[in-house]
Amino acid sequence: MNRLLVATAAALAALASLPAAAQFQKPEDAIKYRQSSLTVMANHFGRVAAMAQGKVPFDAKVAADNAHVVATLSRLPFTAFGEGTDKGAPNRAKPEIWKEQAKFKDAAEKMAGEVAKLEAAAKAGNLDAIKAAVGAVGGSCKACHDDFRAEKYSN
Amino acid sequence: MNRLLVATAAALAALASLPAAAQFQKPEDAIKYRQSSLTVMANHFGRVAAMAQGKVPFDAKVAADNAHVVATLSRLPFTAFGEGTDKGAPNRAKPEIWKEQAKFKDAAEKMAGEVAKLEAAAKAGNLDAIKAAVGAVGGSCKACHDDFRAEKYSN
Repeated sequence: MNRLLVATAAALAALASLPAAAQFQKPEDAIKYRQSSLTVMANHFGRVAAMAQGKVPFDAKVAADNAHVVATLSRLPFTAFGEGTDKGAPNRAKPEIWKEQAKFKDAAEKMAGEVAKLEAAAKAGNLDAIKAAVGAVGGSCKACHDDFRAEKYSN
Repeated sequence: MNRLLVATAAALAALASLPAAAQFQKPEDAIKYRQSSLTVMANHFGRVAAMAQGKVPFDAKVAADNAHVVATLSRLPFTAFGEGTDKGAPNRAKPEIWKEQAKFKDAAEKMAGEVAKLEAAAKAGNLDAIKAAVGAVGGSCKACHDDFRAEKYSN
């Protein structure tokens, strides 16, 4: 096995060992699941971000509760990008997800790591730390979307 | 205010006070959010149920992790059934959701209560208690679907 294959195998093993590793009967089930978990995650991240940006008043408990939802969901979508799930239902997954699996896995890990920091900051009720963490999480979302999410849906 | 209105107001107040109470710009956002959170919740409940039913080997950690996802999501969908969210995107919400709000809220609370028991059983690693709780959660899902979910999608 060359180095790339080893890295890919390690990345897949890490994904497979996630506590909530997904088992999907059909590609469309995986697509629906990953889109759903990303939708809910983005919604709750948006609520914390709105506080960090001063768009809504800061409420430490609400921030902590929402950050916990984001953290609980943060690793789930990436269990649902198995081989063959590029088609089956309209989706925006770029072929690069499967061509550059180690890079994709790194991007997912980066986001989950930033989300963990956000959860810790929100749990501590530290608005300055929340603001910094929201910026880092948002940056990690954008970086992954830039590389791995297409502008338009395809089947 | 008559008794029904008082009960309805209390139910709505309880929903509004949920830590992660949703704010949605458009009805279709609320519909997408509630469908997404129910999709993820059902998926993870299914993984615990499969263990309870002996379809996959029991793994206490996997059961506990999945039950925690279910519990974290269990109250979220019901923040997204506000007035006017019956239309806007294909969905299966019956008019009874808004006609019988106290009953709908009771059904949602019943499910969340059973899910809390499931999480406790899974955390304790007690398979017999998990089996009982899975049955109760499944029953609460079905009861609510029977009353409040249509067979076919409409806009």
